[in-house]
Amino acid sequence: MKAEIIAVGNEIITGNTINTNAAYIAKAMLQVGIRVCYHSAVGDYAKDIHNALKIALERVDVVIFIGGLGPTEDDLTKETVSAFCNKELILDQETSKKIEEHFSKRKMEMPTSNYKQALFPEKAYILKNDNGTAPGCTFMYDDKYIVLLPGPPKELIPMIEHRLIPYFKNISKDHYYTIDTKLWGIGESLAAKKLAHVLGEYENYSVAPYVNNTELIIRTIAHSEDINEAIELAEKIKGEITSCLNEYVIGYNDKSIEDSILELLDKHQYTIATVESCTGGMLASSLVNCSGISKYFSEGIITYSNEAKMKYVKVSKETLDKYGAVSEQTAKEMAEGIKEVTRSHIGLSTTGIAGPTGATKDKPVGLVYIGIALPDKTHVFELHLTGSRENIRQATVRNILYRLYTLLR
Amino acid sequence: MKAEIIAVGNEIITGNTINTNAAYIAKAMLQVGIRVCYHSAVGDYAKDIHNALKIALERVDVVIFIGGLGPTEDDLTKETVSAFCNKELILDQETSKKIEEHFSKRKMEMPTSNYKQALFPEKAYILKNDNGTAPGCTFMYDDKYIVLLPGPPKELIPMIEHRLIPYFKNISKDHYYTIDTKLWGIGESLAAKKLAHVLGEYENYSVAPYVNNTELIIRTIAHSEDINEAIELAEKIKGEITSCLNEYVIGYNDKSIEDSILELLDKHQYTIATVESCTGGMLASSLVNCSGISKYFSEGIITYSNEAKMKYVKVSKETLDKYGAVSEQTAKEMAEGIKEVTRSHIGLSTTGIAGPTGATKDKPVGLVYIGIALPDKTHVFELHLTGSRENIRQATVRNILYRLYTLLR
Repeated sequence: MKAEIIAVGNEIITGNTINTNAAYIAKAMLQVGIRVCYHSAVGDYAKDIHNALKIALERVDVVIFIGGLGPTEDDLTKETVSAFCNKELILDQETSKKIEEHFSKRKMEMPTSNYKQALFPEKAYILKNDNGTAPGCTFMYDDKYIVLLPGPPKELIPMIEHRLIPYFKNISKDHYYTIDTKLWGIGESLAAKKLAHVLGEYENYSVAPYVNNTELIIRTIAHSEDINEAIELAEKIKGEITSCLNEYVIGYNDKSIEDSILELLDKHQYTIATVESCTGGMLASSLVNCSGISKYFSEGIITYSNEAKMKYVKVSKETLDKYGAVSEQTAKEMAEGIKEVTRSHIGLSTTGIAGPTGATKDKPVGLVYIGIALPDKTHVFELHLTGSRENIRQATVRNILYRLYTLLR
Repeated sequence: MKAEIIAVGNEIITGNTINTNAAYIAKAMLQVGIRVCYHSAVGDYAKDIHNALKIALERVDVVIFIGGLGPTEDDLTKETVSAFCNKELILDQETSKKIEEHFSKRKMEMPTSNYKQALFPEKAYILKNDNGTAPGCTFMYDDKYIVLLPGPPKELIPMIEHRLIPYFKNISKDHYYTIDTKLWGIGESLAAKKLAHVLGEYENYSVAPYVNNTELIIRTIAHSEDINEAIELAEKIKGEITSCLNEYVIGYNDKSIEDSILELLDKHQYTIATVESCTGGMLASSLVNCSGISKYFSEGIITYSNEAKMKYVKVSKETLDKYGAVSEQTAKEMAEGIKEVTRSHIGLSTTGIAGPTGATKDKPVGLVYIGIALPDKTHVFELHLTGSRENIRQATVRNILYRLYTLLR
């Protein structure tokens, strides 16, 4: 089934709130075979809600509204949608009692306007809200499904997980299973060429590439009436993708590159240390975002000046004078220096020109050297990056992590 | 003028990418009096792009497309929109040359498909892209404006700031002038109460609060046919806001807290050094994102283990044994230690439990100590933070920066 998400709220259209719910819902609904094809957002105006529903009903089977279920006069979603569908609003006793309890438990007086939240379109299935006073609901209009959900993510996410997904699982006979294969170091078009025999939409599965940040993702979704059959099919396709593009695979599903590196450090029992110039701590900070890294990472140094490079990691004055701080030689001495002084198995270094100032005739903004000193050999890579100072620094970190992973694997 | 934003891309509708651009654009366009009233998102399908444009033209004056300007066959926005508007696509020589240079600079072969990115609808005004190969453009269709922008935020944001906003500023008879007053340490409702006489929408200006990350922003937008009148009005309101909330003001407009700190370091001629435990380099990395910081920041240390805390910044074994690594005493010794060993005027330290593991009975996840050793006195603050590991680490960095700013001001 095809779906559209309609977010309702002035805070969304003015940009004061980023609509993260839409992305969450689109991913979640795939589990029950509902493919979100359109997102839209309108302000708190009955006319706009009415028109958005009219447009959606012309192109999808499931219309999912977010927001506008609160107790105030601004909250118009339920009223407008019910009027459109010619459904009467009926008070649900159980919900009404639950809202009364919510207030009495907090020793607060309940405004009569809150009873509005216990009204539902006739024959609606109520989606209970364990985290707030606005329940959602779903009902049929002709042969289409209409779903109303509250706006706050902390109410919406559990409601989808515990109420809406089970509701659709009950009425659908198919089970869906997704595997993301993450790639780095290969462009979308070359990957698509190598996977030409796999990509596409088929009866029981689909395989499609997505670019996310600096990674390329190949998403496989399989479905079947038997969940085990869906899993088996998705795993088989994952195996095929991996065997075609093995050297570029950096992980599966939600596992980050930092997590994958931590696994490899654990496997080899390698300790690691960092010394950073242009990234100024961002590389260490990425590693530290892995809970559990403390067993393998205990210190890092930011050597932003030449003096610090000499003092902490023994870069030689000759090297700095002859080749400069941004050079292959300096990156190498930094990586080997930090490995030595911290007695780690691996030393990582970064040095480069992040801009916007600091460029010279020979060394443009975006020229970066990264060093990876492994137990047996030191590798240095020259990078030519573009974008803002922040972009260049981030890309440097991604690059060194991906390359370290590739070398260790 | 009313506007609609249409994001194009399968990665958006599937939820693989969160549409942060829409919120950014909605806020940015207010500077030129364009009010975004609708958001929508469709996949990479010509029919959907065509229909979305048709719907938008019936309800707004400005249609802003995001994405689908890449070189591959999937990228259909420009082609579909041009066909809808009966505009021929014409090769722009300057853009074509720029794309060729982009590839030759990177010593990469240029695929012929990239020439597609140098094609524009006739009479379009080209919005140059300083951060990628896909320029945007804007053109008139009847009396409506159509704008095409690239999808990656690092390309889109500078294009809006440096190309699109100036374009609309040029054609509008009204000049808009925006001042953001950034606050920290006060909640939205208390700020709104103190500013009750200032907030609201008036004939020539509007003042409204926004929450952005950990900062509260009071946005003032004044407009007039005379730009000087608009500036004068906005400055007058800024003065009023500042006099009401002076102790909470941490800066204006796009100036980051890091920039404000750099100014103060410059004013006092203070050098600064960092030693980090739970933030693992994120604090130094924030400072290093200021171009020009190298004059005041030359080294930082990540002491993730107790041994490193003793080795680099002379935290005493007694302190670690008696109070633990996450304690007021350790934070103080770390801050004073880094100040001393680097002979800096200011030493900053962080130590805390970022989670999800590492909590003890007395020390829950989110307990963080930050130390600020100034030339004359050391300050230590105890923080109780919530959220994910990443959230806690980021909030720690924001906190120490805001507090340093407040102390130095």
